[in-house]
Amino acid sequence: MSTPRYFGLLRLAFDQALATVLAEVGPQHPELRPAHLQLFRFGGIDGSHTAELAAHAGMTKQSMHELVTHLERHGYLVREADPVDPRAKRVRLTTAGQQLERQINAAIADLLDSWEKRLGTERFDQLWNTLQELTGETALPDRARIRVPKNG
Amino acid sequence: MSTPRYFGLLRLAFDQALATVLAEVGPQHPELRPAHLQLFRFGGIDGSHTAELAAHAGMTKQSMHELVTHLERHGYLVREADPVDPRAKRVRLTTAGQQLERQINAAIADLLDSWEKRLGTERFDQLWNTLQELTGETALPDRARIRVPKNG
Repeated sequence: MSTPRYFGLLRLAFDQALATVLAEVGPQHPELRPAHLQLFRFGGIDGSHTAELAAHAGMTKQSMHELVTHLERHGYLVREADPVDPRAKRVRLTTAGQQLERQINAAIADLLDSWEKRLGTERFDQLWNTLQELTGETALPDRARIRVPKNG
Repeated sequence: MSTPRYFGLLRLAFDQALATVLAEVGPQHPELRPAHLQLFRFGGIDGSHTAELAAHAGMTKQSMHELVTHLERHGYLVREADPVDPRAKRVRLTTAGQQLERQINAAIADLLDSWEKRLGTERFDQLWNTLQELTGETALPDRARIRVPKNG
């Protein structure tokens, strides 16, 4: 019975981190729930197709549609036809959406800093190296770049 | 822009693992989607209150209700009033649900074995130790116990 819980640590760590980020960002954006933050976990969603976002998130198009609609209704983004493929819709962040993205990135940077302090740099780096190896996401930027400027 | 993607590795690793487990278990249970498997990530859901499951999963009660209803409709579980608190509903796995849980546990054990082979035991253990420390889930069973018997 214990194996699934072990396995679930990956998700638990992610969910706890998301809750921390929401606690940081949320007071200025009371209409956001954790699911909405999730959309920003890929980084740089501006210009993405909603179908891509759904595929990347492992969500149904319907669920992604609901998330995007919620964010659109609250003024963080608009959907527009892709000029290259007018049948496809892409997401454009509004000024408010860009500001939210910067706030989320800053909150994540703070969280990662606190994790690095707790674990020490060696174990912190090992965590991401191991996860990169397991996921095959080896094309990620090097360590230096994950320290984004707080207001960048 | 890269921080959220880094951070998202936790979730990506979890989602990929879930997809692997679903590929293993799915052919015998075509009505299951990743979200349904998620319910089993806590281990031993039999006897849990649906409200507890929702809180643990960071889901709304409504979303959890839909998951549980789907599993109930397909004969994996029933809901019954808790004898101690009749206003609360608890989940009871049927024989089919118990069998599914065993299959999921076996698939996860296989996946963890393959991860341990890829990483080596030292890095594999470090991954879980680090995640336990970050999440505060230090009461987890020791390493020996995570190798559940395949048909156990």
